[in-house]
Amino acid sequence: MLAWSHDAARDAGCDVLLIVHHQEEAVRAALPEAAHARQEIPRGTGDAVRAAGARLEERSTVLVLPGDAPLVESDTLRALLAAHGENLCTMLTCLVEEPGAYGRVVRDGKGCVRGVVEVTEASAVELALREVNAGIYAFDARWLATELLPSLLPHPPKHELYLTDAVAAAAARGALGAMLHGDARSLMGVNDRHALSEAEEVLQARILRRHAEQGVTLRRPSTIRVEATVEIDADVVLEQGVVLEGRTRVGRGARVGVGCVLRDTEVGEDCILHPYTVAEGARIGAGCRVGPMARLRQDTVLEPNVHVGNFVETKNSLLEVGAKANHLSYLGDARVGAGSNVGAGTITCNYDGFRKSRTDIGAGAFIGSNTALVAPVRVGDGAIVGAGSVIVDEVPDNAVAIARGAQVNHEGRAEDLRAALSARAGRASGK
Amino acid sequence: MLAWSHDAARDAGCDVLLIVHHQEEAVRAALPEAAHARQEIPRGTGDAVRAAGARLEERSTVLVLPGDAPLVESDTLRALLAAHGENLCTMLTCLVEEPGAYGRVVRDGKGCVRGVVEVTEASAVELALREVNAGIYAFDARWLATELLPSLLPHPPKHELYLTDAVAAAAARGALGAMLHGDARSLMGVNDRHALSEAEEVLQARILRRHAEQGVTLRRPSTIRVEATVEIDADVVLEQGVVLEGRTRVGRGARVGVGCVLRDTEVGEDCILHPYTVAEGARIGAGCRVGPMARLRQDTVLEPNVHVGNFVETKNSLLEVGAKANHLSYLGDARVGAGSNVGAGTITCNYDGFRKSRTDIGAGAFIGSNTALVAPVRVGDGAIVGAGSVIVDEVPDNAVAIARGAQVNHEGRAEDLRAALSARAGRASGK
Amino acid sequence: MLAWSHDAARDAGCDVLLIVHHQEEAVRAALPEAAHARQEIPRGTGDAVRAAGARLEERSTVLVLPGDAPLVESDTLRALLAAHGENLCTMLTCLVEEPGAYGRVVRDGKGCVRGVVEVTEASAVELALREVNAGIYAFDARWLATELLPSLLPHPPKHELYLTDAVAAAAARGALGAMLHGDARSLMGVNDRHALSEAEEVLQARILRRHAEQGVTLRRPSTIRVEATVEIDADVVLEQGVVLEGRTRVGRGARVGVGCVLRDTEVGEDCILHPYTVAEGARIGAGCRVGPMARLRQDTVLEPNVHVGNFVETKNSLLEVGAKANHLSYLGDARVGAGSNVGAGTITCNYDGFRKSRTDIGAGAFIGSNTALVAPVRVGDGAIVGAGSVIVDEVPDNAVAIARGAQVNHEGRAEDLRAALSARAGRASGK
Repeated sequence: MLAWSHDAARDAGCDVLLIVHHQEEAVRAALPEAAHARQEIPRGTGDAVRAAGARLEERSTVLVLPGDAPLVESDTLRALLAAHGENLCTMLTCLVEEPGAYGRVVRDGKGCVRGVVEVTEASAVELALREVNAGIYAFDARWLATELLPSLLPHPPKHELYLTDAVAAAAARGALGAMLHGDARSLMGVNDRHALSEAEEVLQARILRRHAEQGVTLRRPSTIRVEATVEIDADVVLEQGVVLEGRTRVGRGARVGVGCVLRDTEVGEDCILHPYTVAEGARIGAGCRVGPMARLRQDTVLEPNVHVGNFVETKNSLLEVGAKANHLSYLGDARVGAGSNVGAGTITCNYDGFRKSRTDIGAGAFIGSNTALVAPVRVGDGAIVGAGSVIVDEVPDNAVAIARGAQVNHEGRAEDLRAALSARAGRASGK
Repeated sequence: MLAWSHDAARDAGCDVLLIVHHQEEAVRAALPEAAHARQEIPRGTGDAVRAAGARLEERSTVLVLPGDAPLVESDTLRALLAAHGENLCTMLTCLVEEPGAYGRVVRDGKGCVRGVVEVTEASAVELALREVNAGIYAFDARWLATELLPSLLPHPPKHELYLTDAVAAAAARGALGAMLHGDARSLMGVNDRHALSEAEEVLQARILRRHAEQGVTLRRPSTIRVEATVEIDADVVLEQGVVLEGRTRVGRGARVGVGCVLRDTEVGEDCILHPYTVAEGARIGAGCRVGPMARLRQDTVLEPNVHVGNFVETKNSLLEVGAKANHLSYLGDARVGAGSNVGAGTITCNYDGFRKSRTDIGAGAFIGSNTALVAPVRVGDGAIVGAGSVIVDEVPDNAVAIARGAQVNHEGRAEDLRAALSARAGRASGK
Repeated sequence: MLAWSHDAARDAGCDVLLIVHHQEEAVRAALPEAAHARQEIPRGTGDAVRAAGARLEERSTVLVLPGDAPLVESDTLRALLAAHGENLCTMLTCLVEEPGAYGRVVRDGKGCVRGVVEVTEASAVELALREVNAGIYAFDARWLATELLPSLLPHPPKHELYLTDAVAAAAARGALGAMLHGDARSLMGVNDRHALSEAEEVLQARILRRHAEQGVTLRRPSTIRVEATVEIDADVVLEQGVVLEGRTRVGRGARVGVGCVLRDTEVGEDCILHPYTVAEGARIGAGCRVGPMARLRQDTVLEPNVHVGNFVETKNSLLEVGAKANHLSYLGDARVGAGSNVGAGTITCNYDGFRKSRTDIGAGAFIGSNTALVAPVRVGDGAIVGAGSVIVDEVPDNAVAIARGAQVNHEGRAEDLRAALSARAGRASGK
């Protein structure tokens, strides 16, 4: 959440200094490129800005942003800086329907801002005001550092220093600016999960709009979620319900089907992902066909033109160019050579209860349906494995391997068997 | 739908009497705790209230609500009762863009309500009015029972008694109140499926907002559906597209992945349900990992820290603590002992065409992949079953069981087989 | 997109002539019933209308619509034609917040429209106007063909002919009408994917509202997508996230579960499709139960009362009345006879690397779990196949077929095996 206001400030041309008073490690990890200062004990917004210390005077203007307002946009900050000019302080305000806990903006008869009243100190008339302080200010750096901050007095009952006192101080000097912002939603603070949820909706709308304008087709965009870290080329189609997370990247012309969930996954050009494909940490080559209802787990690599079909799971496996595994299979710790065909119901038995072992299938091989490949095991180039086999030993190149029982037909016996089973069921239910 | 207005009235401190004129059994079943009265033949709203009979006078004030207005809130009803005071009748009105079939509220030059005109009797000028009667009233009980109801006259063409005549009657006595409600949506009647759909959207927004305020994180809330009967602890995350129905309960810290559909299911603390998990009538212990694309059917019980993976179906089965069934399996009428591992492609053959039988797998067992367990059958504690086996007899504790054909490699024969298959395919297509 | 404005014009009683200047084949294919004319080189809207040639005078009134305004409604066009009367030209305008690239409507002191100024030729004052030209006009056909079009002069820099010059020309003759339309959204042009996405939302809302009014229940309609070609009977329930595409048809009383994706699929009366059923080109008979997470591919035919359960894929297969395949199976190029039961994990091995072959299962048969049926193969009426079998030869009617290895229990050996595997794992990790 912090990253959004950080980026907005950066985009507005600011150097960012983060004032942190808890979860410092998490903040440093999330935004390693930003400078940090520590507020040892949280004693109000005025005290927080004091924690910046001497660095306040390194620039001529200081912009102060709260950390919980992720929706502020760089354009707004630029406009605020432009409006600031020679003021000592320029504040951002907005009109809201339910002013709640926000500080109320008090104007005089001429419409000039005289100050901000916190809710705890507001009269009934002031509480009814609907113009509120967004908590975003531009300051003359020298005045802030050398006059305002030293003069702040603690407010009861918590004896905190309020940065909002700057407003009255600058107004008294005739050097206060106030910019009323039309879009209150973009200034709103996020203090609970409902507000967070609303803020995420606004961010999502921005992200999706940007992709749409760059040539991505979105079906029912309100059902799609794309994280800010995701890259999508032009001429991509995202069907409804798609979720793209983390370092996911989708190449030109790809189609991501209904409800696909991709995390940290690379999708090559012109791929078709059918509905409900779930992938994490996978690389999918150009022209692949995946799903529906396939699952590609960590370190799956599909070379170009691979087909992975429904109810197939892959993990830590390489499927070489043109390989196919179209139905109901588990490929774990495996290589499938170029052009090989893995039949329905094939299972790589990669785990013996103690360690994971590899299955290596050569190029041009054919694995019959319902086959178990007990790893570690190798199936050679061009080999053929009969359906229903349990392969425990190497299958040499170009060998035909079969490992199954012979078929025996007991002719005319089904009626007897049904009678016996029916009788047994009758006895069971009769108990 | 009825339950919502019923609950709103209850929450506003009312005792509820339902007037029913059809589907009486269904209404009684849905709201067994409410009192009922029967309107034998539906002859208008006034006639419906008459059906309450002597019970009208058991209280000093009577609130009348239509049964098809599920969105009315208890706060609104409380405000109406507070405004009612010593009035004979106090009505609720609202302003709507498209007044349609609602009765129009007619005010005099001083702005006082004089009456309500039904659409069938309205003049063109009256039809243009946008203030409408919400059909919700507070009445002085004695006046209603002893003066108003006996005086109602049938209106042509259907000769129905209109409760709306109370408005003019009370106005004539100078004892009418009218409360204009700002949120027309919450008063709207539900007369077709489109209106029902819109009403459900409003209800969903309320339900989800309540959960969010209590600490539940919702991703893209407009895609989530949570029925009113569902309980969710704090620090739960619901990803987009989640559906929670019936008596579902989600424990603290659990994460319900994209598109999970849960009905009557209990989810323990800190569980992770991966995308597209579908569960009905299941109990999932703390710390379990389920899905993606798993299905837990009726009477599935997962003890803590169980893993059920993709393309796994369970039914009427107990998986004891720490058991795993990670891929492509069907576990029906089974017990899987603590810490046991069920390999990919394992099937419990619980049905012989006549009855269902149980599979019992002990603790610490290892079931190799692609194994069929022909129930009734028992696999003992610590037993190991080789991949690809068909287990028809008991496997004793600590036994190793194998039931499969031996592997035969026909070396160098794949080329011949391919040639034969290719020739056969050629002949087939040549026909 | 074109089809929508085409249909609106048709519904308003117009004969439609499409002027095409690129993608002519695609347009002809999409709207084969409409007449076409070709604009050889695109030289502006005036030039486009000229391409209609002599056909302009075949009617007394000509309506001109842009091809990229799919949201215009037939009611609007009817109103425009009604307002047109004896005018030479009647234009449609609307008020927008961000007039962008739309031509501005210039009115004189009396409020009469004087002309339209394109953005490239507009002054700053004109750019600030918020009433814009929707690009939709009714014309007196003779005037258009014989006076206006011949008189149009090219505008620099591209020397295009602007149909908007008609506005000033008609105004100069005192025979211009202008109809201000209240719903700007329905007139908006679609020039990028964001606008397309917004237009699709409006269309979806219209489609879904129509179905809801005809008795279809929609859960969270904003998550549902139904293409205009789809037919849905009354008393159908569409759960959230449903996608219905192409020639899909859903019969009365059917319930389409959460996230089902159906294309060109026929769903019979009273069917229940459980969540995440994906179907394309399938026919599902009355009373069937499908899914969750089933996939019906092209040329699947389910006769009435068939059950297809989770993780089952069908393709080019007929399941006769009452047949069941409830779990983890692949049925390709198969027939399953009436009342037969296909066990979990059954695979039809329909592909040998060269050609597809058929599997034929008779009526009343029972296929045990984890069975591979190696096609071409026939299982007779009433036959029983034991679990875990690989069926390569015909199973006669009423035969019991078994094709699997015998079970061998090595008693007490699991501990030794675990020790050996553990030691091997230790050596492997020790390397």
